[in-house]
Amino acid sequence: MSAHPRLSLNQATIKHADLPTALAVTEKAGITSIGLWREPVAAVGLAAAAALVADSGLRVSSLCRGGFFTASDDAARRAALDDNRRAIEETAALAAAGAPGSAAVLVLVAGGLPAGDRDLPGARARVADAVAALVEDAAAAGVTLAIEPMHPIYAADRGVISTLGQALDVAEQFAGVGVVVDTFHVWWDPQLAEQVARAGRTGRIASYQVNDWITPLPPDALLARGMMGDGHIDLPAVTAMVEQAGYAGDVEVEIFNQEIWDADAGEIAERTATAFGAHVGL
Amino acid sequence: MSAHPRLSLNQATIKHADLPTALAVTEKAGITSIGLWREPVAAVGLAAAAALVADSGLRVSSLCRGGFFTASDDAARRAALDDNRRAIEETAALAAAGAPGSAAVLVLVAGGLPAGDRDLPGARARVADAVAALVEDAAAAGVTLAIEPMHPIYAADRGVISTLGQALDVAEQFAGVGVVVDTFHVWWDPQLAEQVARAGRTGRIASYQVNDWITPLPPDALLARGMMGDGHIDLPAVTAMVEQAGYAGDVEVEIFNQEIWDADAGEIAERTATAFGAHVGL
Repeated sequence: MSAHPRLSLNQATIKHADLPTALAVTEKAGITSIGLWREPVAAVGLAAAAALVADSGLRVSSLCRGGFFTASDDAARRAALDDNRRAIEETAALAAAGAPGSAAVLVLVAGGLPAGDRDLPGARARVADAVAALVEDAAAAGVTLAIEPMHPIYAADRGVISTLGQALDVAEQFAGVGVVVDTFHVWWDPQLAEQVARAGRTGRIASYQVNDWITPLPPDALLARGMMGDGHIDLPAVTAMVEQAGYAGDVEVEIFNQEIWDADAGEIAERTATAFGAHVGL
Repeated sequence: MSAHPRLSLNQATIKHADLPTALAVTEKAGITSIGLWREPVAAVGLAAAAALVADSGLRVSSLCRGGFFTASDDAARRAALDDNRRAIEETAALAAAGAPGSAAVLVLVAGGLPAGDRDLPGARARVADAVAALVEDAAAAGVTLAIEPMHPIYAADRGVISTLGQALDVAEQFAGVGVVVDTFHVWWDPQLAEQVARAGRTGRIASYQVNDWITPLPPDALLARGMMGDGHIDLPAVTAMVEQAGYAGDVEVEIFNQEIWDADAGEIAERTATAFGAHVGL
């Protein structure tokens, strides 16, 4: 099989595959790039993971994920920063192990409101503070921090950065900080076209991720993403915005979906390649 | 019992009560205003409903709901406009039957994407077209059309107007068209403060509805609203924005929640009055 040359399979789509399996099924489906997650990397150890990636010949398009910056107590905040510094090192090592064209991009999820805390502007301000605290480490490691705006459905418990515009408001304060454009999170935004264009003008698009918005939403809203073509998002329209904004990197498929997770990883990799070719507009 | 003088119980909160019961439990809880829904009004007939409202001595704060403007075929579009014209007449009749201080406000829900249609900008444009087609009828009847931005979680299947700013972009094209500020739908918006202020400057806040955002989201995301104080929204902060924007009308409590719907309507009316007093910041 061969797949679109810019397609990258994000490991979350084949959540239950370990790293060797994930690399193997990606390659077998003709996909030439992979988006890695920290947990399966940690399961084999960073050095072994880097060796496996190097052996695979695949590009690495990003590492998921850092972030979770919203804790209000000092100890938790320091722990989050320390963990993100480790994630920066992992990102650099894995991208270096990947094939040419790999991107040293660390995806940052903001984190939700601390328990019992209703101060959303306060939590959002702490995200910007944490990014500020990490910018030098990231630059030293050659890593791009990529702030991912999350769908407002997750504002309370997962990601307080809710729009692309808001992510750019944070990213533009710093050199070398970008944003993630994930269709599931941003497709509904009336300002999407203008904010993608803005991200392009300032060179801030660090990652483009595709998937779909399906209805009815499944009982667990975290698993509400569908395969491209199965939902309501005009993916070619979003892709055209991102292309026009000058983004020329890998395009990740990241899907959290129980039915997909329950299926065979190899089969999902092949379905992903087919759906990508048919529905993304690249 | 007595309740806050600006509290209005939206009938959706006591969904399974018929109109006579809804009016009775509202009054018994010391609440002096009610937000009506078309279905329970239709169940008794408009004339009988108006007489019941007049007898109750309650104010009417709004009628839910018109809208559903996104159909792309002509017949369905004409049917939607005709239905909205009937809703305008109902709004006028019910507000006239209510006690002094009643508001002739028709809440408009935009509607979702037509089946199989991924053209979100197109659907949004049809909403503006439909409002344009109804403005004169509404003005003739003394009714304010109130566009309700809905949480982006509903963009595909219920309401393509996703932010307060977007609702204002439509409303401001016309005289006598307002917006609904519903905390569940707008609390996450990074532009909330500036858009509420904008709505105030142009006199566009036609309704303020309160409730809460609870986690984890229940399996049916349509029923994800909680009682004030049970969730993550900083209600006093939003109320302060709305107050500063000059809104001085009734404040509706509108909650779609299975547990609340399953409880006794009289008990819910009393819980609503108590939670309103404790958590809304009025």
